[in-house]
Amino acid sequence: MANLTPKSKDPSQWFTDIMQQAELADIRYNIKGFLVYQPWAVDTMEIMYDFIEADLNERGHKKYWFPALIPEKNFNIESDHVEGFTPQVFWVESAGADKLEERYALRPTSETAFYSMFSLWLRSYKDLPFRTYQRANVFRYETKATRPFLRTREFFWIETHCAFPDEVSAFQNILDDLKSTEKIIGNVFGIPTITFKRPKWDTFAGADSTYAADAVLFNGKVIQLPSTHMLGTNFSKPFGVKFQDKDEQEKFAYLTCYGPCVSRIYAAMVLTHGDDKGMKLPFELAPTQVIIVPILAEKEPKVLVEAKKIAEELKKNGIRVQIDSSDKRAGEKFYFWEMKGVPIRIELGPKDLEAKKVVLVRRDEGKKKDVSIEHLGTIASKNNFVEEIKKEGLLLSKALKDSAITAFKNMIVDAKTLPEIKKLISTNIIRTPFCSAGHEGAECAQIVEKDLGSTIRGTRIDVKEKPAHSDKCPFCGKEANEIVYIAKQY
Amino acid sequence: MANLTPKSKDPSQWFTDIMQQAELADIRYNIKGFLVYQPWAVDTMEIMYDFIEADLNERGHKKYWFPALIPEKNFNIESDHVEGFTPQVFWVESAGADKLEERYALRPTSETAFYSMFSLWLRSYKDLPFRTYQRANVFRYETKATRPFLRTREFFWIETHCAFPDEVSAFQNILDDLKSTEKIIGNVFGIPTITFKRPKWDTFAGADSTYAADAVLFNGKVIQLPSTHMLGTNFSKPFGVKFQDKDEQEKFAYLTCYGPCVSRIYAAMVLTHGDDKGMKLPFELAPTQVIIVPILAEKEPKVLVEAKKIAEELKKNGIRVQIDSSDKRAGEKFYFWEMKGVPIRIELGPKDLEAKKVVLVRRDEGKKKDVSIEHLGTIASKNNFVEEIKKEGLLLSKALKDSAITAFKNMIVDAKTLPEIKKLISTNIIRTPFCSAGHEGAECAQIVEKDLGSTIRGTRIDVKEKPAHSDKCPFCGKEANEIVYIAKQY
Repeated sequence: MANLTPKSKDPSQWFTDIMQQAELADIRYNIKGFLVYQPWAVDTMEIMYDFIEADLNERGHKKYWFPALIPEKNFNIESDHVEGFTPQVFWVESAGADKLEERYALRPTSETAFYSMFSLWLRSYKDLPFRTYQRANVFRYETKATRPFLRTREFFWIETHCAFPDEVSAFQNILDDLKSTEKIIGNVFGIPTITFKRPKWDTFAGADSTYAADAVLFNGKVIQLPSTHMLGTNFSKPFGVKFQDKDEQEKFAYLTCYGPCVSRIYAAMVLTHGDDKGMKLPFELAPTQVIIVPILAEKEPKVLVEAKKIAEELKKNGIRVQIDSSDKRAGEKFYFWEMKGVPIRIELGPKDLEAKKVVLVRRDEGKKKDVSIEHLGTIASKNNFVEEIKKEGLLLSKALKDSAITAFKNMIVDAKTLPEIKKLISTNIIRTPFCSAGHEGAECAQIVEKDLGSTIRGTRIDVKEKPAHSDKCPFCGKEANEIVYIAKQY
Repeated sequence: MANLTPKSKDPSQWFTDIMQQAELADIRYNIKGFLVYQPWAVDTMEIMYDFIEADLNERGHKKYWFPALIPEKNFNIESDHVEGFTPQVFWVESAGADKLEERYALRPTSETAFYSMFSLWLRSYKDLPFRTYQRANVFRYETKATRPFLRTREFFWIETHCAFPDEVSAFQNILDDLKSTEKIIGNVFGIPTITFKRPKWDTFAGADSTYAADAVLFNGKVIQLPSTHMLGTNFSKPFGVKFQDKDEQEKFAYLTCYGPCVSRIYAAMVLTHGDDKGMKLPFELAPTQVIIVPILAEKEPKVLVEAKKIAEELKKNGIRVQIDSSDKRAGEKFYFWEMKGVPIRIELGPKDLEAKKVVLVRRDEGKKKDVSIEHLGTIASKNNFVEEIKKEGLLLSKALKDSAITAFKNMIVDAKTLPEIKKLISTNIIRTPFCSAGHEGAECAQIVEKDLGSTIRGTRIDVKEKPAHSDKCPFCGKEANEIVYIAKQY
């Protein structure tokens, strides 16, 4: 069995190792930056999609499937957008033996596809709010080094596109997007984030303002998880997304979009929870929630019979369970399923059978405890076994989340001077006074980038933070008007 | 409200109308042959995906996400395959400002992507059978007229790719694919099909043989639903998909692939069940299974309160339900939801409320019947209301399926002479003796195509059929060796 680099020693190499050993994705496909995602990762990412989509449905979003190709002419309609994205577009230029009359972009994002249809669909204030989404593969010709899951040339996301009659209701939707991020990515997936309004110079191409949740991958290095954009009327004007309002005036709709990237969120989840032994999956996300390892089953056939009974009972109650009856040694099996991050292991040998119990080991605790199977298969209300498993599953998820939050909080530190910032930046997120998150601060942001290899992540949107009266910007020495956060980006 | 062309008069125009009025897809997107699929269709297609995937998972298939791009060099490895598909490929030729060194195909199908990885993954007979699948959008530069859902340039399918140690087990998998077709597409979606071995001249590019299920759209016009292909070692040899067998010999794996196209199956489902009033959705597939129409709710607020209680109760029991409390007239609402194909309508007015009942109307029957709501919300075992709804739902699905099967069977007719065939072909599937489904029959097949505008669908795979000793081929007059089916293809 291959060796896993300890995460505590080198988390980046650990991630590469785990990707290979847990069979998350294969990087040997012969196009740079394009991955083959394997079942252990796909199954969890599908579960993630289900959680995100259920939440969007509840919020009134309707699901569409839009074409993966966008005509170049659509793409060129909004000038900031085309400028921002053109360097990243893959172009379809021929088909069969024909040169196409017009190039088609492989969608890098779908504003220019959705809003061309919005202009046909929306007529009246009664059509608003109009909330849509799709799950899709998108394509970007990354010129930076690609990194599996984290920065790839094809990735898997959800994009929502919504229209509102005014800026206030559009902004409320952005706040709701941020709440969804907290509810699903924070609470269910257990990935702590802070939510920023991005500085002016780091706004999505074509947006008035951008809001985004940053997670920490390791050592204070952050990665952007979903971002949500106030597009204002920047797209609705050139695309003609208009409606007749109650006052019978024709108005342009306010548009917003939100883009949780599932393949990237998956990587953040793996890096957030994993330890030196491998992955640790929250109970809700594990493709296999319970692995049953029969002990000495070759000598005592009853063991496998009972293992199957237990598996059947768990399955019936909606728990994803597998029996590992391969001919590997028990120790090897333990090692393997720990590495894969299965939340709960059940060991069952002849002696356990006699005592009408199993041994349960939670991935996060690693401690053996006995659980009775005396009432297995009796009516639900009496069946403590299934309840016990579910309870342990929830406890594990909570423990993973709590420990992630503690680590995350410890990485956020205050600093007010350049020497302090320099000292702390390599492993922390720095909270600091700053001159301005508007265009005026762009020069200082360049210093941060050049001298510290870091970026200004923005100002907090969830809490109001103001610098003290005497605070100066550590970069230009001018009066500080904001509190910003600085971090290295993965 | 727009008029719906009666299906009985012009099913093709009916389909176009229903697509627009039920908001299934919008054809106004500005690339020919690329559709925007709308929520009412997407939600059902997602349910279809769930059914198909659950069945594949049960059969031991593992889910992958493969890149949408395939390097031209992969594509060129299997010569029949490249010859068959090259005229249909969209090519990505540049990215950003760069001309790519090699063209990438937008996948028209993914054999050449999967098998390039199989060659890395498979080592030993212990790795076999190896069953994979992905759900994906695929792209074909159709030169024939495109038709929404039925023949589009981007479509949505599942493709399975499987490897076996020998031809026998590979063929067993093909039979299992056909069983899955019957189980899901036949039994759950209610679409009757016949399953053929395609004639030699109509085999998938790169396959030894092709098996496919044909459904009838209308008037005897057939459409191919899933096909499954015995690829033999045609791909495993050039791609190097090898394994060490038990006898320690290195052997090439036998490969099979199966491709249920969900967007096309959806259209077949709509055309199979619809009537002059609009769509009829099987209970299992309806995004909204029950529509509640409150009557006189503006006068009697209790009506809406009770409607919400009923909706809550149904929802709690896993039934997809909506209340139509819009300000349209009741008659308009009935018309609209009938057109959308919602299986069950519940009407509830002040008098019903008094009598502690609702009026239930099934989409297929159109008859009003009373259902008691006296025990609504009491413990499950006593709650007859939910059970009643589920029962009516199942009865509707069965009625749709039975009626489709009857219509389907009536369309299959015997004919042994050319005049008979000519007379019957425009509205039927013809069962006839034929010279040969091997290469020798290709000339007669061309006559069928040229003179009758029809195609030889193949020989039955599910039942053995042999011509009588004296039977002649109606086209060349030679001895008939097979029973084949002839039909017009939509």
